Amino acid sequence: MLNFTFYSPTYFVFGKDTECQSGEYVRKFGGSRVLIHYGGGSVVRSGLLARVEQSLTDAGVTFVELGGVMPNPRSGLVYEGIELCKREKVDFVLAVGGGSVIDSAKAIALGSCYDGDFWDFYEDRTRTASATALPVGVVLTIAAAGSEGSSDSVITKEEGMLKRATGGDCLRPKFSILNPALTQTLPPYQTASGATDIMAHVFERYFTNTTHVETTDRLCEAVLMAMIHEVPKVIADPNDYEARANIMWAGMVAHNDICGVGREQDWNSHWLEHEISAVNDCAHGAGLAVVMPAWMEYVVDHDVMRFAQVATRVWGCSMDYADPRATAMAGIEAFRNFLRSIGMPTTMAELGAKEEDIPYFVKTLGLNGGETGGFVHLKDADAEAIYRLACK
Amino acid sequence: MLNFTFYSPTYFVFGKDTECQSGEYVRKFGGSRVLIHYGGGSVVRSGLLARVEQSLTDAGVTFVELGGVMPNPRSGLVYEGIELCKREKVDFVLAVGGGSVIDSAKAIALGSCYDGDFWDFYEDRTRTASATALPVGVVLTIAAAGSEGSSDSVITKEEGMLKRATGGDCLRPKFSILNPALTQTLPPYQTASGATDIMAHVFERYFTNTTHVETTDRLCEAVLMAMIHEVPKVIADPNDYEARANIMWAGMVAHNDICGVGREQDWNSHWLEHEISAVNDCAHGAGLAVVMPAWMEYVVDHDVMRFAQVATRVWGCSMDYADPRATAMAGIEAFRNFLRSIGMPTTMAELGAKEEDIPYFVKTLGLNGGETGGFVHLKDADAEAIYRLACK
Repeated sequence: MLNFTFYSPTYFVFGKDTECQSGEYVRKFGGSRVLIHYGGGSVVRSGLLARVEQSLTDAGVTFVELGGVMPNPRSGLVYEGIELCKREKVDFVLAVGGGSVIDSAKAIALGSCYDGDFWDFYEDRTRTASATALPVGVVLTIAAAGSEGSSDSVITKEEGMLKRATGGDCLRPKFSILNPALTQTLPPYQTASGATDIMAHVFERYFTNTTHVETTDRLCEAVLMAMIHEVPKVIADPNDYEARANIMWAGMVAHNDICGVGREQDWNSHWLEHEISAVNDCAHGAGLAVVMPAWMEYVVDHDVMRFAQVATRVWGCSMDYADPRATAMAGIEAFRNFLRSIGMPTTMAELGAKEEDIPYFVKTLGLNGGETGGFVHLKDADAEAIYRLACK
Repeated sequence: MLNFTFYSPTYFVFGKDTECQSGEYVRKFGGSRVLIHYGGGSVVRSGLLARVEQSLTDAGVTFVELGGVMPNPRSGLVYEGIELCKREKVDFVLAVGGGSVIDSAKAIALGSCYDGDFWDFYEDRTRTASATALPVGVVLTIAAAGSEGSSDSVITKEEGMLKRATGGDCLRPKFSILNPALTQTLPPYQTASGATDIMAHVFERYFTNTTHVETTDRLCEAVLMAMIHEVPKVIADPNDYEARANIMWAGMVAHNDICGVGREQDWNSHWLEHEISAVNDCAHGAGLAVVMPAWMEYVVDHDVMRFAQVATRVWGCSMDYADPRATAMAGIEAFRNFLRSIGMPTTMAELGAKEEDIPYFVKTLGLNGGETGGFVHLKDADAEAIYRLACK
């Protein structure tokens, strides 16, 4: 196990009707003048925005609003939000939405305390470690990104369609309100995309070269098994509150790093996927459903026993002691079958991505002849091979 | 799943040599004048105290010291610490030790910001929710109590030997330094006692009447399986750093409530044990090794399938579909066998507790004709029956 620090100071407020406590928690964490940041009209139509506004007003908190966040959030709206915050002397950013809204809110919070271009933090994530940002709160509407408990934010710059991530403790939400009932209106495809993202957050941590990490291995496996148990229930019945609740909490646990401390992590499937969704504007989770099993097949021989472990412990495969690689491959196939069963694409074509774009994806990945880190270091040729595997 | 809040703001610093960062973290969390609180001479003899002092001095932090905390920490030393803090204008309490030292430090931190008797908070734990306390930091030397990440503190009042708990967010440590190497000098008996306490913290959350809690069920099972894998290694080789590391982190995860949110919890084994160790001054974990399997046998019929679930998922028992109760009992027996294998007592006699004291334990439990809450509500007669089961 490696030395590490773990810090997850977000105050989580979980359960039915908890969005009506938004005002109370903004005040608890020092806010008095709020930017409410959200996406499309569903937050308005469902009455959620009105309930949050009422709660703020009841708590004596004033607010301005900025909607319009799109999936794969763009830098343009972030610049607009930063200007609004500076002009209106906002002291707290409240994200009402899913991962895209939260990531956009974090970018605005960061840029509002900075005189330069906020993109600097996305070009060089080390800057964010010592940065300051406005406090951020969250009312979560999609269980997926884990952004409600994480220090991370991913933004796409329109110019060149570059998708980049940054992260630092200043971006961890002060509070996150998680009401599983708010996710019941999500269509099955978005629900399944979110679930895939949650499972990917675990796998990116699970595949490691660090030895003697039984405690975090078991925690990773726990989240995966819970997802396998709960996701088919919400696909069958979108109104299953209890299954929604288990998934929503699993989404937080999957990404606040309790499953990832003390070990080298991978994250190459995420980087590979970012290039696809930046161009095709597909759901991030759907992109991961295509990339991640292909990545697994490509790297399986790097550590067959680790793949066999997840196959037996998580997917319930029998261990083939004469041929552990067969067990490893059976686990990958079980993952792919699970993804198909919840309605996810597993090929580039199903995703709407074009095979002829692969050289462009490889180029924008930006390795420039170098390599990534992680479980298996990837060069341009490896990235290309994985994209091609994802076509079949 | 029930509505809940989850808050675990402690900054964890984990790994080799991390105690040398004590000063840096005291300053990060606003301390400038520290009470170093510790137990016996081992912290002095090992050189740990000197390293911590050096780190504080290097960071420009001054300090006073108070040693002498005993297992099952007493109110007398707490009063002494409170007086010292007030007199010396201490603004930060640094616990260097295990659960007893941390719990004593939390009591001192609480009492130092209060004009009345600190015991008020232990008589009525609801007071602590809105209380203020000096910030507390931890350098942990025993993996067991989970007090390094929890909001709880347990103190024994000499007058009447009453052992009582309190808890509130103000008692959560600002930072906790966890160096597994510091636990390598622990004798096997204390190591095993700590491990038992960790497993008990999970079981107290696992046995619940709340349904649809798959995510937290799986997380509980993850911690238990990791413990079953790692504890025998440190009993065989006390210097196994990697196994020590897995256990130390499992101890935190077991008690910061990530495994217990959204569900009714039990804790009756803890309350039953407190009466034994208050009188016999035995290790808390050893007391739990005696009480908990007896409690399990007594309540098994309340929810046979939950006991069968842990038997199959955690202990690897085969499910007897014709007789689930047999599987449930096999799981309890596997737990008892595991405890014996790591050198724990499983009867009152082995613990040095006397059967004739049982009426006194029942009396000091303080139910006064009422009943406890939890998985199965217990009355005086139930408590007595469980103590008697623990004698056989």
